[in-house]
Amino acid sequence: MAAEKWVLMVTAQTPTNIAVIKYWGKRDETLILPVNDSISVTLDPDHLCTTTTVAVSPSFDQDRMWLNGKEISLGGGRYQNCLKEIRSRACDVEDTEKGIKIEKKDWQKLHLHIASFNNFPTAAGLASSAAGFACLVFSLAKLMNLKENQSQLSAIARQGSGSACRSLFGGFVKWILGKLMLVPSQHLQEGNGSDSLAVQLVDEEHWNDLVIIIAVVSSRQKETSSTTGMRESVETSLLLQHRAKEVVPKRIVQMEEAIQNHDFSSFAQLTCADSNQFHAVCLDTSPPIFYMNDTSHRIISYVERWNRSVGSPQVAYTFDAGPNAVLIARNRKIATELLQRLLFFFPPNSETDLNSYVLGDKSILHDAGIDGMKDIEALPLPPEINSISAQKYSGDVNYFICTRPGGGPVLLSDDSKALLNPKSGLPKEA
Amino acid sequence: MAAEKWVLMVTAQTPTNIAVIKYWGKRDETLILPVNDSISVTLDPDHLCTTTTVAVSPSFDQDRMWLNGKEISLGGGRYQNCLKEIRSRACDVEDTEKGIKIEKKDWQKLHLHIASFNNFPTAAGLASSAAGFACLVFSLAKLMNLKENQSQLSAIARQGSGSACRSLFGGFVKWILGKLMLVPSQHLQEGNGSDSLAVQLVDEEHWNDLVIIIAVVSSRQKETSSTTGMRESVETSLLLQHRAKEVVPKRIVQMEEAIQNHDFSSFAQLTCADSNQFHAVCLDTSPPIFYMNDTSHRIISYVERWNRSVGSPQVAYTFDAGPNAVLIARNRKIATELLQRLLFFFPPNSETDLNSYVLGDKSILHDAGIDGMKDIEALPLPPEINSISAQKYSGDVNYFICTRPGGGPVLLSDDSKALLNPKSGLPKEA
Repeated sequence: MAAEKWVLMVTAQTPTNIAVIKYWGKRDETLILPVNDSISVTLDPDHLCTTTTVAVSPSFDQDRMWLNGKEISLGGGRYQNCLKEIRSRACDVEDTEKGIKIEKKDWQKLHLHIASFNNFPTAAGLASSAAGFACLVFSLAKLMNLKENQSQLSAIARQGSGSACRSLFGGFVKWILGKLMLVPSQHLQEGNGSDSLAVQLVDEEHWNDLVIIIAVVSSRQKETSSTTGMRESVETSLLLQHRAKEVVPKRIVQMEEAIQNHDFSSFAQLTCADSNQFHAVCLDTSPPIFYMNDTSHRIISYVERWNRSVGSPQVAYTFDAGPNAVLIARNRKIATELLQRLLFFFPPNSETDLNSYVLGDKSILHDAGIDGMKDIEALPLPPEINSISAQKYSGDVNYFICTRPGGGPVLLSDDSKALLNPKSGLPKEA
Repeated sequence: MAAEKWVLMVTAQTPTNIAVIKYWGKRDETLILPVNDSISVTLDPDHLCTTTTVAVSPSFDQDRMWLNGKEISLGGGRYQNCLKEIRSRACDVEDTEKGIKIEKKDWQKLHLHIASFNNFPTAAGLASSAAGFACLVFSLAKLMNLKENQSQLSAIARQGSGSACRSLFGGFVKWILGKLMLVPSQHLQEGNGSDSLAVQLVDEEHWNDLVIIIAVVSSRQKETSSTTGMRESVETSLLLQHRAKEVVPKRIVQMEEAIQNHDFSSFAQLTCADSNQFHAVCLDTSPPIFYMNDTSHRIISYVERWNRSVGSPQVAYTFDAGPNAVLIARNRKIATELLQRLLFFFPPNSETDLNSYVLGDKSILHDAGIDGMKDIEALPLPPEINSISAQKYSGDVNYFICTRPGGGPVLLSDDSKALLNPKSGLPKEA
């Protein structure tokens, strides 16, 4: 090691992802091994991502982390597992410019500072922990010069948050369950989890027609955390194992095929059915778990009615462990019509500014011919709706985010993007 | 037959019922054969029942029916099937007092007038068709002197509306799926349905501690009819068959045991889990079916929290094809506390009269110390609720009905209770 004053930093940006074939249920709680494969689409980091700066310095006397500017504890088992796995794989690092040399063995003694920031509300149920753990693992792997490939890194991120493993890639990503080993007694025994990892099915260019609109839905309920919910489902739902063993394996094959072939009809049918089945398993849990609310149900009903009126799916919906709708439109034209419909049914409150009501790729708003409240008020009744049921629900959606499938983690070499001060290694805002 | 002027009438009253192990899915749409056994509790006809008067006269020139005073068509297949089945079993009838004699063969030519009245709102999702078809079959069987026993009659009522077969008995009732026959090709073949009928498990005196409170929940959605919903679930849900074949058979055995032993903990656990699983199958249907709404979810959450805080179930909940909650309290003391909690969370609107907000057995209201709005406003926060979540939802419940397990169909010999004029055979109100 060189002089005691240096700070070595890496900054990276990692996307969030949304599952189209859902992960619900662990077969191993510590290793975070799932009961079934899952498939996700990575969301454009321009609109939803985590940025993380990791720093190492001989002057740091303990591992510390700041999330969105606030220091948080790294004491939890999930952080500890990730840090341990990464440190054990760390390699020699040399920065000749700065005159820094860290040997493999030094990493066990050196402490880390980590600062992480989400460009979207953490509490909104938008998979912030997935992007967060993926970014932590990815940036530390760069800092410590790990030789592992993205899939191998995904198996480490998985131990922080299951779905984080899918955020190591852009496009469409499959999280492979991993092998179960058959031992002589004929009981299934689980592996060590190293084969439960993510692989990229196709990159973000493969199906770039797709447009994604997220409705962040207002909720008065406190939701069950997905960790708790999953555990209770595994313990009490009599449908979960049937889903994991009989239903999902077939859907995974069909979904991969639909993605390869840009077959939107199959893609939408599978995505919607699998979201609904995941929520069905939640309802079959004791006590039952309700993530969707009346607003979620309404959005589903509108989409189903529209799809049926056209005769083929135009929009797919999927809901994670919360009431937010993630709507995937087959192309930009449909996305424009979708946004018009959403704003027709869920206009902003009079005190809400349109600019803070539709976030992300605002060009879709302009394509939809909407520049202000007057344009929303002038939106026509969608033709598939009888006027009787054309009630409007102002205030039931907090805001919309327009986005698209996006790329995987990237390094940000521009130092101005770093969240830690390159001298002190402390948060810039602090 | 005697002179042309006579009218022969029978009036009967039949209860409604609520399933505690649910019927969802037919294996034969015409015969109405279910995919699994179900178990129900019959509700006290004092609070929820159908009264039906059936009349025969040589002066009638066609079969006619009036429901709640309004003439309706008897052309539907379900009415036709019931009428055909009953006529084919009709026997000689003699009323020496009135000098009327009808021979078996005459029934094929004689026309019927039927008037039916529910003592509860038909559209409120309270199994009005179950009570209605049961009453139709029971009263016609009396009029036409059928020799069949109640179970055999239930197999006829079943062809009008599946769950109607369970309204032929009081207490707890099991609707038996009926045998599937194994034919040489190893494919299961269905029987003619004569063995798909209801049997009484225990009468209404067996477990007379139970008190039932129904919350009739306001809904802005038009609901999928149970006939349509069931068909779509059978066609599209990948969980329904697993439920029918693997889950329900075990629950039926456990539920019969719980009922025999007055084991409220098991009874409540099974009732709640089975209601939730039925709604899970609805959600797993394409397009998904939502019968419960946010108010239903809230009621479940309150009950679950209360049960957990006590350490054992005090109240069971079950929901049919709509948002209404049927809450079964283990005894009258718990029912009183339940009603207090319900009125705390769901107080009536200021313009609603308490007398029309709590219907049925109002003595529970008095036991709860509630005589007016002031008493509701003074209700304390239930101890299991943190003040943070103590939001009140005035207007989300239309009204409550307090009732209990009740008896089966009865004949009303008092002519003043008849709905048809004994001279004209036309509705009294008309």
